[in-house]
Formats: sequence, C-alpha cells, structure tokens
Amino acid sequence: MNNVSLVTISKPIKTELAEFSTVFNASMKSKVGLVDLVTKYILKQKGKKIRPLLVLLSSQIAGTINERTYRGAVLVELLHTATLVHDDVVDNADKRRGFPSINAIWKNKIAVLMGDYLLSRGLMIAVDGKDFDFLKIMTDTVKRMSEGELLQIKKTRKLDINEETYFKIIADKTASLFETCCEIGARSSSDQAAYHVAMRKYGEYLGIAFQIKDDILDYEGSTKLFGKPIGGDIKEKKITLPLIYALAHSAKDESAKIKKLIKESGKTDSVTSVINFVQNKNGIQYAEKIAKEYADKAKKCLEVFPENSSKESLLALLDFVIERKQ
Amino acid sequence: MNNVSLVTISKPIKTELAEFSTVFNASMKSKVGLVDLVTKYILKQKGKKIRPLLVLLSSQIAGTINERTYRGAVLVELLHTATLVHDDVVDNADKRRGFPSINAIWKNKIAVLMGDYLLSRGLMIAVDGKDFDFLKIMTDTVKRMSEGELLQIKKTRKLDINEETYFKIIADKTASLFETCCEIGARSSSDQAAYHVAMRKYGEYLGIAFQIKDDILDYEGSTKLFGKPIGGDIKEKKITLPLIYALAHSAKDESAKIKKLIKESGKTDSVTSVINFVQNKNGIQYAEKIAKEYADKAKKCLEVFPENSSKESLLALLDFVIERKQ
Repeated sequence: MNNVSLVTISKPIKTELAEFSTVFNASMKSKVGLVDLVTKYILKQKGKKIRPLLVLLSSQIAGTINERTYRGAVLVELLHTATLVHDDVVDNADKRRGFPSINAIWKNKIAVLMGDYLLSRGLMIAVDGKDFDFLKIMTDTVKRMSEGELLQIKKTRKLDINEETYFKIIADKTASLFETCCEIGARSSSDQAAYHVAMRKYGEYLGIAFQIKDDILDYEGSTKLFGKPIGGDIKEKKITLPLIYALAHSAKDESAKIKKLIKESGKTDSVTSVINFVQNKNGIQYAEKIAKEYADKAKKCLEVFPENSSKESLLALLDFVIERKQ
Repeated sequence: MNNVSLVTISKPIKTELAEFSTVFNASMKSKVGLVDLVTKYILKQKGKKIRPLLVLLSSQIAGTINERTYRGAVLVELLHTATLVHDDVVDNADKRRGFPSINAIWKNKIAVLMGDYLLSRGLMIAVDGKDFDFLKIMTDTVKRMSEGELLQIKKTRKLDINEETYFKIIADKTASLFETCCEIGARSSSDQAAYHVAMRKYGEYLGIAFQIKDDILDYEGSTKLFGKPIGGDIKEKKITLPLIYALAHSAKDESAKIKKLIKESGKTDSVTSVINFVQNKNGIQYAEKIAKEYADKAKKCLEVFPENSSKESLLALLDFVIERKQ
C-alpha cells in the first residue's frame, strides 16, 4: 500500500471535488474589500482538502452525493479554515502551509475577526439550507475543539500529561472534526442510523491516527520544506505521544532532566537532545504502532458497507494518513 | 427624564432578570478546569446586561416572557461576551470594565479560544431549543459584526472615513446585535410580524444612538473611573462622529494638521490637541444631536404597542443610553 496519493484516493469523486471548490470559493465572497483580500490569500494556499474529501466519500459510500452533501463539505471546510486562522494566533505561528500566516501579515486583530467571519459564514450556509442536524453536530464540534485546545494549553504549562489526557485532547481538538465530516457526509445521502454511526466512528479513529502521525512528524529526521518545522511542538512545550511514552519508560532522574531541557527549549541544542531522547527510547515506533491500531479500528467500521470505489478510497486514505511524510 | 437608572428601567422584569442570571451562569459551565476559571472571572465583572434586558422587555411588550425568551437572552449574552473577549485581542486592550482583560491575564491564545467556546455554547443552546429563527438572525449578526469591525480597521488605517461609512460601520458592528436582541425578544412571545419589525427597527436605532454616545464619551471631560479611558479611540486612530464632523467643518490645512496629530497620537499632547479641536468645532454637540434624533426615531417604533410598564421602560432606556456618563 505504498505510494498512496490523495489524487488516487480522490478518483471516485473527482468531478464532485471540482464542483465543491467552485461552491466553496463563492461562499467566501464579501462586500468588504479587506475580507475579500484575506480570503483570496487563503484560497491561494491550497490545503490538502482532506475534510471535504471525507464528506464527499462518506456521502458516496452511504448513497448518492447531492446538494446537501456540498453544503456539508463547504460548512466543514469553512469551519476548518476559521480554526486554522485562529490557531495561528493561538500558536503565534508565522507560517501556514509554507506561506506567511494571516496574523503575520495582517496582525492578530484581523486574524481573530476573519476567523469569526468564516465561522459565521459556514453556520449561515447550514441555517439557510435548513440542515439543522448539521448545525447540532457542528456547534458541538466547535465547543469540543476549543475545549480540547484549552485543555492542551493548561497541561502544557505544567508539562504534566499522561496518555489518557493526550487521547482526550486529540479526540476533542482534532478527531471531533473528522467525526463530523464523516457523519455529515453519511447523513446527507442516507437515513440509516447504522451508517451514520459507522462513519462517525470511522472518522473518530481516522482523526486520532491523523493527529498521532502529525505529532510523530514533529520528531522525524529531515527538516521539511513545507508545514511545521521539526521540533516545533517541543519549543511550544507540547508533550505528545512519542515523548509521553519515552518519559514513562525512563528513570525518574532522566525524565526530570528531559523536562528541564523542554523548559529551556528556546535553544536549538535542547530541542535536538529531546528528539534524540525520544528516538532512543523508541517513542516514535510506539506512536506508529498506536496510529496503526487506530487505522485498523477505522477499517473495521467500513465492514457494514458494500464493496465499491468510495470504500476503497476510504481504506486507502487510512494508509495515506499514517504513511504521509508531511 | 434625568437620573434614569437601569434599576428603574429593569423594574417590570426584576424577577425575570434574576432568573436569566441563574440560567446564564449555568450555561457557561465546562468540565475543563481552565474554561471554568476564565468564565468565573468573566462572571465576576458584572456588565450592564443591556442586551438580555432588551430581550426580556421586547418579549414582554409583545406578549409574555417564556422559556424561549430566556434561551434568546442567554444566546445574545453569550455571543456578546464572546465578542468582548475577542475584541480585547482585536483592540489589544489591557482592561475591560475596570478589570484586567482576559488576554492581559491569560494571553491572546486563551482569549481567542474562550471566545470560540462561548460562541459555540450560545449557538448550541439555540440548536437544542430548536430556535431556528434565532439561529438565522444570530449567524447573520456574527457575520455583520465581524465585517463591521474589519471595515473599521481598513478605514482606520487610511484615516479616511466619512459619515456614510461611519454609519455603515456602527450599524454592523454595534446596532446589529441590538436589533437581534429586540427581534428575538418579540419573536419569543408573539407571532405578529408587525411586532417583530417594529422591535427590530427600535433595536437598530437604539444601537446606533448607543454607539454614537459611546464615541462621544471618548471625548468627554474627566477621566472615567471605569470603562475606556478618554482619548482611547484617537490613540487607536478610530475616527468617530464628533471628529468626522469637526474635520468636515475645518479648512483643508487645519484638517491636514489634525490628521498628522492623529498619526502621532502615541503622545498624550497630540491626543489633548485633537480633543480640544473637536470641542471647539462643536463636534460633540453635533453628535449629541444626531444620537437624540435616533433615540426619537426609536421611540416612534414603539407606537404600535399598547401602553404598559415594559413600553415605559423601553422609552426610558433610550434616555438612559444617550444621557449616561459611562
């Protein structure tokens, strides 16, 4: 299953993804010049569009893609974009997808307001389409995402985090939106509750695997051309699965020494030492094993569906997520 | 009509306001410790609660206060609180209602996430109550509020703003939420479209008068104990009605000189000169006259309603808004 690419995965819904992009770009239009300027800048930085892809595939595996599917895909992508813009303020990030971040160019104030604008646009689309089930799922997700991030910040300050808390945080801040994408997709094309539940669970496990892999990438070898630089999480004192495992499998004095290094992690030397420590303690292998387990659990969720091209794509997406290099 | 107080105005709905506070405080609970800590801090700083007051009075003037009225009041107050928390990041404010702001204590990242959390909580209450009309009004309001603020930022940078743009900005960033409060209140207790429209218009005019008065207070005499310090808008290069009028009634070289002073308004001397200029040109009297005109237009909107104690309060509220000292 090597060399899985998003292009291959998208094949069964190629025309639908193009249609989505048209609707999505139109949804971001505003009469306020500054809003249009910022949204155009956002649209130039093409992301992976994994979330709309999930909505479309989840709709197709359960039935036929329709107007409601597109509204759902636009809703989740607007919300995701809103949270990225806010996250850049939250993380004080200078870059996003290789481009300077919104807050780096236009300052925090505009980033905060643009996030609020994009979020309200997404919700308006659901209100106008009378997709009240989407709204219920979505507002709950916004709440979970912000609670997850706040929990992470609190634990980060104390460098005090175990596996249980880690899984709670990533379920809320990351997996909740993947769950939402899959459930919204299935709901848009089918009335079968069993399908809604199966896709929601698939999304949850996929999302957890996705975040674990994201956290692994922070520890891996070469500096990446795009995306977050290596060691970024350590500098921000974010304790993720590879490090949690390594700390739990060290003597007390060694783990105390590493925590001290993390506190001083403004210095590059300290970051390198922490990365080496995690590698020596097999923290990355362990996290990879767990990500694989979640991917396998997600695969099982698809057993209720008949064999078809969208199912193949959703299976391949799991391999893509845990094998990706960025 | 001097010495109107919010206590007198609240009299017809005293027990209902107390009930609102109980429901509102409960709505902000979270299992995440940091969220609870921040919300408790917010709840300690009792605001004027003008928005829930408006929802309750608008419900009572059109019918009888009920469960849906309370949900509406909680929804608008949660949204208002969310925007205050975000505004402090937007304005880089250190203080709010005489207390250090959330971002001053917990930094921008927590302020952004808390705003998102409070917004989603508000929307969830409307979703759970199946108040889909509220949701439609509310998401449109969030969009207008962020667009209004973004338009203000854009114009601020160029010091380029006329009365028309000023009224567009304050209608979107401030009056839209007052409109929403009054329409939601009327909708919660009555099916009569004429009542919904009358209260929406009342809210719009009240909101415009409220913001003009807010902008006047930035120019007025003594340093205030609570709230924004005098001259804060000038320091942020926000051109409001008193200054727009004064600039429009000056010779070209004088107005150019003042604009230069605003650009350097980090210095206290420059701020004082701008305030003196506005006072000499009767900018404050002019703005007071316009605020009074909007208050009178708002009064006319209430003519469709029979005489009762809520109507008296809504009339008195207009006097309170334009006569207040903070």
